[in-house]
Amino acid sequence: MATLRCEGPDGRLAVERDGSWAWGTVGSLQVALDTGDFGTGGAAEVAEEKCLSPLPRAYQFLDGSAYVNHVELVRQARGAQMPESFWHDPLMYQGGSDGFLAPTDPIIGDPDWGIDFEGEIAVITGPVRMGASRDEAAAAIRLVMLCNDVSLRNLIPGELAKGFGFVQSKPACAFSPFAVNPDTLTGWDGGRLHGVLCVDLNGQPFGRADAGRDMTFDFPTLIAHAAKTRNLTAGTIVGSGTVSNKLDGGPGKPVAEGGAGYSCIAEQRMIETIATGAPKTPFLRPGDRVRIWMEDEAGRNIFGTIDQTVEAL
Amino acid sequence: MATLRCEGPDGRLAVERDGSWAWGTVGSLQVALDTGDFGTGGAAEVAEEKCLSPLPRAYQFLDGSAYVNHVELVRQARGAQMPESFWHDPLMYQGGSDGFLAPTDPIIGDPDWGIDFEGEIAVITGPVRMGASRDEAAAAIRLVMLCNDVSLRNLIPGELAKGFGFVQSKPACAFSPFAVNPDTLTGWDGGRLHGVLCVDLNGQPFGRADAGRDMTFDFPTLIAHAAKTRNLTAGTIVGSGTVSNKLDGGPGKPVAEGGAGYSCIAEQRMIETIATGAPKTPFLRPGDRVRIWMEDEAGRNIFGTIDQTVEAL
Repeated sequence: MATLRCEGPDGRLAVERDGSWAWGTVGSLQVALDTGDFGTGGAAEVAEEKCLSPLPRAYQFLDGSAYVNHVELVRQARGAQMPESFWHDPLMYQGGSDGFLAPTDPIIGDPDWGIDFEGEIAVITGPVRMGASRDEAAAAIRLVMLCNDVSLRNLIPGELAKGFGFVQSKPACAFSPFAVNPDTLTGWDGGRLHGVLCVDLNGQPFGRADAGRDMTFDFPTLIAHAAKTRNLTAGTIVGSGTVSNKLDGGPGKPVAEGGAGYSCIAEQRMIETIATGAPKTPFLRPGDRVRIWMEDEAGRNIFGTIDQTVEAL
Repeated sequence: MATLRCEGPDGRLAVERDGSWAWGTVGSLQVALDTGDFGTGGAAEVAEEKCLSPLPRAYQFLDGSAYVNHVELVRQARGAQMPESFWHDPLMYQGGSDGFLAPTDPIIGDPDWGIDFEGEIAVITGPVRMGASRDEAAAAIRLVMLCNDVSLRNLIPGELAKGFGFVQSKPACAFSPFAVNPDTLTGWDGGRLHGVLCVDLNGQPFGRADAGRDMTFDFPTLIAHAAKTRNLTAGTIVGSGTVSNKLDGGPGKPVAEGGAGYSCIAEQRMIETIATGAPKTPFLRPGDRVRIWMEDEAGRNIFGTIDQTVEAL
C-alpha cells in the first residue's frame, strides 16, 4: 500500500498486487482499514517521492520500547539501574498521530532541541477488542512499515521529569513510503520482522541492526498490552521502539568498526559515554540527511526509503 | 454541534442554529473541521441519548492539568512537594483518541483497576501551526465541550513509575453530547469557561466547582504549549484536566458541607487523606452512576449531560 499526495489531508490510496499499482476504490487507507475494502480500479503511478506516510494522520500511534537492550543502555549511560520488571512489562507511550511527515519531508526544528532520528519497525492493526489475547492481537496485524520516530533529546529529560510522558519532545514522525501485508514478507515470523534495518547518516552507514534480534516484546505482545483496558480502532499504529542489537551480550559497535551500529544517535552517544565518559557524536544539524530502509534477501528495497534532511526552524 | 449514531465510525453531524437542528452537509464533524464547511440541509432530530461524543474518534487528544490546585493536592496527599515550575510550565499528556465513549455509554472495566471519573472542560481546535503564539492558539479554538476523562487509579502509579506516561491507566473517555461555538457562550472569556461544572455521583451532588476559577493555564496557553514543536491538525481536542477549586486558599470541602466539592473521586480521597490519614470514599463500582453537565445563568443545560454507569468487565 502507498498513499499519494493529493488535495485532502488523507492522500489517495494505491495498492500493489503482482508488481502493478492501482488506485484503491475507497480513497484512503483509513477508510480501507475501517471497511476492509481494499478493492482497486485504474492503474496508479507511484513514485516514492510523491508518497505521504501510508497513514498521513492516524487515530492512534502507540510506540513501544521493545528492544530492551536500548533501554538498558540509556540507563547505564546515566548510571542508573534498569528495573527488572522492564524485561516482562513493556514500556510504551501514547504518541502524537495527528500529522505525520511524508517519508521525504524535511525535519524542521531548532537544532538546540537535540534533534535525533530513531529507526523502528511499525505495524498497522485492524480493530482490537479490549482484553484481546496475544493470538487475537497477532491476527489483527494488517500492515508492516518502517518509522523514523523523530525525537528532541534535549527536551526529553525536562518533560519526562514532569511525569506525564512526551508531548513537545516527540514531534511529527515519518513512515516508509510503502506499508506491506505481512503475509508477503519472508522475514515476518508472525510477531517480529527479521531483516537488517539500514540507517545511513549523511551517506555513511550508521545502523545495520537486525530487527528480528533482541526484540524482547514482539508486536502481538505490544498490541495486547495496549488493548488491556480499551478497544483499539482500525488504523492503530504500534511501533517497536528503536531497533537495537547487542554484541556478544554487551553494547554494540559502530558499523565502521565492524558492528551493527545504531538506529539513533542517542545510542551511539551512550556507547561513547560508557566508553570514554562523554558523548562525541552531535545530534542532527541543518543539512544533515538520514535514510532508513530495509532490503529483502534479493537486495530489493521492501518498504521504500525514508529520506529526510534537517532544516532549521 | 452534535454527532448522531449511525453505521460508520464517525457518526453523522447535526448543527443547531437559532434553536433548530439540521444535518451537516459534509457528513462528519471531522470533515467539517477539515474543510471549514458547516453548511446544513434537512431538519435533524437530535436526542441526547442518540448522541456520540462530538468527535467519536479524533486524531489527537491532549489533556492538560490546568487546575494546578488539583496537582498540588495529589502531591500533598502522598507527602511530596510540587516543583515550583508547575505554576508556569503546563503539565500535559498525549491521551488516547482513537475511540471515545458516547456520553451515555457504560464505563466498562475491572473494579480492581480503581475506576474514577474526571470532570473537565475541553476545546476542539482548527489547524494550529508549529510555534503558534498564544493569540494564534486562541483564534484556533472552534468548539467547547465537557469531558469525563475516565482514569484507572490503581494502574496509574505503576505506569507513571515507568516514566512514559499513561497508556493502560487512561481508557476511553467520553465527551458531552453537544460541542458549542465559544462565541455563543456567555461564560467564555476567550481563554476560560466560567460556569459551575456539575458532577453528581449516584444522584447526589459531588462537584460544583467553577471552571473559570483557579485555572492556572487557560486554553490558548495549553494549545500553544502543545504546538511548540509540531503542527496540530484540525480536530485536535485539548482538555483542561480535572476542574478543581480552592477554598480560602486551601483544599475545598464536599458539597454536603457547603463546599464546591470535587470533579473526581481521587481528589475527595486526597482531602480525606490529608484530614484523617486515609481515604474513605471508594472508587467506582458496578452500578455506580456519574452525571456531568453545566447550566447557563438561566438554568439551561448548555452541553447536554454525560451520564454514565459503571459495568464490570
